[in-house]
Amino acid sequence: MFQERIQKLHDFLSKQELDAVLITSPKHVYYLTGFFTDPHERFLGLIIPAEGEPSLIVPALDREAAASASSVQNIFTHTDIQNPYEVLKQTLPAGLKQLGIEKSHMTVERYEAIGEVVGASRYVDVEEPLREMRLIKSADEVERMKHAIQLVEDSLRETLKKAKPGVTETELVAELEFQMKRLGADGPSFTSMVLAGEKSALPHGKPGSRQVQEGEVLLFDIGVEANGYVSDITRTFAVGEISEQLREIYETVLAANEAAIAQVRPGVTFAHLDQTARDVIAAKGYGEYFMHRLGHGLGMDVHEYPSVHGQNQETLRPGMVFTIEPGIYVPGVGGVRIEDNVLVTETGVEVMTQFPKQLTVIG
Amino acid sequence: MFQERIQKLHDFLSKQELDAVLITSPKHVYYLTGFFTDPHERFLGLIIPAEGEPSLIVPALDREAAASASSVQNIFTHTDIQNPYEVLKQTLPAGLKQLGIEKSHMTVERYEAIGEVVGASRYVDVEEPLREMRLIKSADEVERMKHAIQLVEDSLRETLKKAKPGVTETELVAELEFQMKRLGADGPSFTSMVLAGEKSALPHGKPGSRQVQEGEVLLFDIGVEANGYVSDITRTFAVGEISEQLREIYETVLAANEAAIAQVRPGVTFAHLDQTARDVIAAKGYGEYFMHRLGHGLGMDVHEYPSVHGQNQETLRPGMVFTIEPGIYVPGVGGVRIEDNVLVTETGVEVMTQFPKQLTVIG
Repeated sequence: MFQERIQKLHDFLSKQELDAVLITSPKHVYYLTGFFTDPHERFLGLIIPAEGEPSLIVPALDREAAASASSVQNIFTHTDIQNPYEVLKQTLPAGLKQLGIEKSHMTVERYEAIGEVVGASRYVDVEEPLREMRLIKSADEVERMKHAIQLVEDSLRETLKKAKPGVTETELVAELEFQMKRLGADGPSFTSMVLAGEKSALPHGKPGSRQVQEGEVLLFDIGVEANGYVSDITRTFAVGEISEQLREIYETVLAANEAAIAQVRPGVTFAHLDQTARDVIAAKGYGEYFMHRLGHGLGMDVHEYPSVHGQNQETLRPGMVFTIEPGIYVPGVGGVRIEDNVLVTETGVEVMTQFPKQLTVIG
Repeated sequence: MFQERIQKLHDFLSKQELDAVLITSPKHVYYLTGFFTDPHERFLGLIIPAEGEPSLIVPALDREAAASASSVQNIFTHTDIQNPYEVLKQTLPAGLKQLGIEKSHMTVERYEAIGEVVGASRYVDVEEPLREMRLIKSADEVERMKHAIQLVEDSLRETLKKAKPGVTETELVAELEFQMKRLGADGPSFTSMVLAGEKSALPHGKPGSRQVQEGEVLLFDIGVEANGYVSDITRTFAVGEISEQLREIYETVLAANEAAIAQVRPGVTFAHLDQTARDVIAAKGYGEYFMHRLGHGLGMDVHEYPSVHGQNQETLRPGMVFTIEPGIYVPGVGGVRIEDNVLVTETGVEVMTQFPKQLTVIG
């Protein structure tokens, strides 16, 4: 698997006539070698040269871990008092002129520092072949994502037992993340969002000491990371009896979610999916309250390609995984979002999320 | 406070004859305005022009949150289907030639995209004045850090009640992070590390299903984030009776930790602190097993300036906060690290961490 992925990058290297590719993002090093580390500000680099075997440059304290986890045999290290770019220079092919780098990961500071030491004449972005590889999930990746979805759904199920009037958003976050860990997740894949009442109308609100109250909605936007892959789901609940307006909002969002999912199949555009959901919401007069895109790809990252928005005329292909998450946010009233993770199959769609979507009263 | 910080950046701008400074890292936007958001891959920018008031560009869905939290009055937004760099261009001074950016945060991709739309002739790194500001903590920042330390220490205290032979590393992580949240932290400030037995010899090991056993060491390297500031502490415990060798390793690390702390005062070099700890460890024959720097600054980030290593000839100044964390890692035997967070005062040192350091037997 790792050999095949590195080979695809090597194909790109050949086509672009690069002397080498340098991978510095921890996720892509993991994707290409099986070795994961968070080097913080230290240098981590996978070098794929035009000729010969790949090499890995890791901080000295990661040598053992890298040797046991990585598919790459040549491992070089640097200590905190060495200039890692000198180690890089020695590892790169002599006389290197064209180097592939990850422009959407590498900082300008590192770019300039590498430029000074390595002095290539051309730097080519290698995000495209990586994005293309990551866009189409393998069976192994789909399994990992299903596992991450199951973990977050089980965590939510456990947490709902404590979701009653009087409990605070923060307490629910604590319980959720405890359950995630207990069930075996590495942790949340992003800041867990539990928002009650009018706070649910802030799409990027922050959980706090606000208590859950009777008659309002309670929104969970949560996910976990497990084995390098993530889930990202949203469910919104009614705490006791809610107003007619909130009910209408809920049913509209659910209809938009289901209408969009019904359109998922190879060949359809992302713009069409977005428009389908938007039309359902606009028809009920809530168009202005759905102010974000319909969804986003996910896999190793919570936000990756494809982007599911109204201007994206690209078409769906089997193996793509993304979210479908329409929402309506009325300031002062409340917000509802329902988010599923879907896989494009050869003939249509597999909805990977299993958690029920009909309006559920809790508390 | 925010005005004063923006003013310092403006002073740098004047000195460098910049037309504007563009801040894009969420942490620095928070540090300079009081508004925090995680925009994921979306564009977030604070513009400080040479003439006139600062502006903030945020994703459309953050408008409400930005308006209520930020000290900046001019707020512009962009939706997912707009090119945010066009909004940026309109917000920047007309005819802009010299722009300040954060080179250690901005990606090469964004740098090139901004270059195309904005077309400045010179881009100057503004990390230096930001680093200088952040290097010396205000009383408010010290209080926040002490709070973050207290939260992690209380979490550890609670978790130790469950640290007994048979419990797994992962279960202890789950309990720790539950306690962090329960006590009011926003979450762990980095991947919580709980490592048992020979795994403690991997300075960047990953907690797993390994059970804690009698006669080994159990290492916790943990921290929380609260109100934008972090803590980062390490304590190592004996599970029941441990070998003479492990005891000696523990006492050596503790002596190195205390010797380095005793040297902390304004005017001393970071190299001297590192050497002090290293000498203690080398004298006991464990020199080769202490293969990382003595410590690192912390504040809003878990790793920030200063870097406490043997080549850093800069001197300590009042208001600096950093870790002191010597360790000895003997493969196959076990590792011990003892990490404190210290504040340089006018006359010496304040050890911010309170958790006891003498060898403690648990289980």
